[in-house]
Amino acid sequence: MLDQIDHVGIACPDLAAAIAFYESVFDLTVACRETHEDQGVHEAMLRLGDGPGRSWIQLLEPTGPDTPVGKFLARRGQGIHHIGYRVTNITVALDAIGARGVRLLDKRPRHGSMGASIAFLHPADVGGVLTELVQPPEA
Amino acid sequence: MLDQIDHVGIACPDLAAAIAFYESVFDLTVACRETHEDQGVHEAMLRLGDGPGRSWIQLLEPTGPDTPVGKFLARRGQGIHHIGYRVTNITVALDAIGARGVRLLDKRPRHGSMGASIAFLHPADVGGVLTELVQPPEA
Repeated sequence: MLDQIDHVGIACPDLAAAIAFYESVFDLTVACRETHEDQGVHEAMLRLGDGPGRSWIQLLEPTGPDTPVGKFLARRGQGIHHIGYRVTNITVALDAIGARGVRLLDKRPRHGSMGASIAFLHPADVGGVLTELVQPPEA
Repeated sequence: MLDQIDHVGIACPDLAAAIAFYESVFDLTVACRETHEDQGVHEAMLRLGDGPGRSWIQLLEPTGPDTPVGKFLARRGQGIHHIGYRVTNITVALDAIGARGVRLLDKRPRHGSMGASIAFLHPADVGGVLTELVQPPEA
């Protein structure tokens, strides 16, 4: 069901500073920057590896304090925010996971980074882990 | 420098229950179980994908409350604990990262899961992210 780790989302108060850090210390480069007003984030995707097996670090800066990531920063401080798993068919995966008793924050897929279809699972039902499913646009 | 996401470490109070959850809800299977007394953890590795690009979910139960993961659970609750990046040469990577001003929790590599050489970086110098470098034994 879960093909691979697609990305790890990291909450940060200052996206430009976080990008500069990951570029200068870890030699990563930004492949894409987007703002998702519906999610309340400015984000940058830094690629690890090449080809279909590549994965991503997703740096997330909230667009304001009254957003999910803004509240996360206030409550927990900067750090790892969520994990995203790549799936081949997000609708099939969501249905299966929901049928197994996990509450779905998104009952239907919505638009995510770089044209992907995404959906979040309730962290309280996944051992405290905010968990995202990601179906890339090419899948 | 960082080849790919090697694993995400997840802290849990009950390893058996966490394994049962990931197996039954996400169809993952345990590839390896180990206890590392020096790190104070019982752990299970669940593989995602195949071949050299595979990655892992690492479920971590503390061996007692006075361990790093035990203290993490008491302070933050269950959830994502750290991220591990795969590197080709961990000694070269550690030297480069240390020279760029990041404090190394392990100045030299030590033994980790499944025969890998590992080293942790100080989370306060990595934007609140406990970060591990992993050189697999075959590298």
